[in-house]
Amino acid sequence: MEKQHTITILVENKPGVLARVASLFARRAFNIASLAVSITNDPTVSRITLVAEGDEVELEQIVKQTNKLIDVVRVADYTGKPILERELALIKVTATPENRAALMQIVQVFEAKIIDFSAEQTFTIEVTGDTEKIDAIEQLLEPFGIRETVRTGRIAMARGVLTAYGEGRTSTTAFSEG
Amino acid sequence: MEKQHTITILVENKPGVLARVASLFARRAFNIASLAVSITNDPTVSRITLVAEGDEVELEQIVKQTNKLIDVVRVADYTGKPILERELALIKVTATPENRAALMQIVQVFEAKIIDFSAEQTFTIEVTGDTEKIDAIEQLLEPFGIRETVRTGRIAMARGVLTAYGEGRTSTTAFSEG
Repeated sequence: MEKQHTITILVENKPGVLARVASLFARRAFNIASLAVSITNDPTVSRITLVAEGDEVELEQIVKQTNKLIDVVRVADYTGKPILERELALIKVTATPENRAALMQIVQVFEAKIIDFSAEQTFTIEVTGDTEKIDAIEQLLEPFGIRETVRTGRIAMARGVLTAYGEGRTSTTAFSEG
Repeated sequence: MEKQHTITILVENKPGVLARVASLFARRAFNIASLAVSITNDPTVSRITLVAEGDEVELEQIVKQTNKLIDVVRVADYTGKPILERELALIKVTATPENRAALMQIVQVFEAKIIDFSAEQTFTIEVTGDTEKIDAIEQLLEPFGIRETVRTGRIAMARGVLTAYGEGRTSTTAFSEG
């Protein structure tokens, strides 16, 4: 597997900007491993967290081009920086009376939660962590019969005081400065 | 605010498919409130969870068109269906010695976690829940000084035995059937 890079892109909340970002990566045949797009506390700005696989030099080029796209406010490339990375997964498994106790143990060890339980013998498990942790619980649950998995894709934040808006700035002031 | 609709799109894991989906929504000037794209336990298939705001009839048209796009395997529209919805947020706040106890109380009540603590008096909080819960904790933390927020966007799963692959099918068999 090629090295994964985590990038944060702050964009104006306008139709078309996501399509432009996705097209740029597709044209370069860069594989997007995961993508999370959501609102920020500034209603005019959305935040994209993108995990891409590929060559570092090539990625630098794409980051530069992304910075030039219309409605892109700022790109932060977290490669090599100390960051916190998390994702969330929902996993639906078969829970027979025989395997229920073993399932509960896995849920406990991974500090996961059971958020749904159906008469048709299914459990839905919610778990958060880094990608390795989610991969690990999926592997452990596989023998029980996974019916369905959905993952959010990774989000990232720099450790300490640094933000995607730059050092010392806050999300509230960054865009009013122009 | 217009009504929000949650849609799951299963796609072949190929470059370009995400750009095609995003373009389709942008052309119709449909606002995407959040988007989460991630791998599934089938390495050839990715799963997109999309939350869109707009008219229901218009959305039905877009869902039909999305179904016809190259590399789209299946679209599941969860509007009006009983589903589990979750998202994950990381929130970095200012934690002075004076406000620390109050922050810890909020973290406890929301069953959140503090995952980073810096010498420059910042806390990074991890929280999961439905959109309303994340909005609520953000509002409560606002007076302390939010430096940065990142959210995954919503993911969704049908309650009970139903999956995005159809009734009774499992993620493992769905694509080998045809």
